[in-house]
Amino acid sequence: MIAGTPPPPYVAVIFSSIRNDGDDGYAAMSEEMGRLAASQPGYLGIESARDSEGFGITASYWTDEHAARAWKGVAEHAVAQRLGRERWYRAYRVRVATVTREYGF
Amino acid sequence: MIAGTPPPPYVAVIFSSIRNDGDDGYAAMSEEMGRLAASQPGYLGIESARDSEGFGITASYWTDEHAARAWKGVAEHAVAQRLGRERWYRAYRVRVATVTREYGF
Repeated sequence: MIAGTPPPPYVAVIFSSIRNDGDDGYAAMSEEMGRLAASQPGYLGIESARDSEGFGITASYWTDEHAARAWKGVAEHAVAQRLGRERWYRAYRVRVATVTREYGF
Repeated sequence: MIAGTPPPPYVAVIFSSIRNDGDDGYAAMSEEMGRLAASQPGYLGIESARDSEGFGITASYWTDEHAARAWKGVAEHAVAQRLGRERWYRAYRVRVATVTREYGF
């Protein structure tokens, strides 16, 4: 579940969101988005956690800014084609960041 | 729950972890770490989600690299003084990243 990313630098897209109540196709969309991300150029990995109160963070990792921007376009298009963000999310914020250091165990 | 961060640039520390089973004082430590973070210089906000399977992401936000590094030292010290990372976490990874863009609704 922890993404096996290469040594930095690379790009992280941090998607923080509050879900609305009810599924409304969200689970299926979420799974499909994971598959869609993994098929994009420059994809390095994805991590996702949502708590029981509906707050979630998804971090996806990309080789560079270009790949991260392309993913943003693909993801927005995919969501727009379906029920739309207002139905699934009460609020969200996306942050695009360049990873400079990493460590762990 | 979504942190109200200022316009970029600023620094994100993305902490991805897999919990061990059982609490072992984790919940109390986690709450205290949140308070501790908020009292540090350069703190901008924190977001945290953990799913029912024990995978979690905590993103903390800092004015600059210096503040993020200082927090790393404080957090490691605080964890080491208590039961230790091996007891609470099966695995974790920390990524330090510079946020360059953000958007949301």
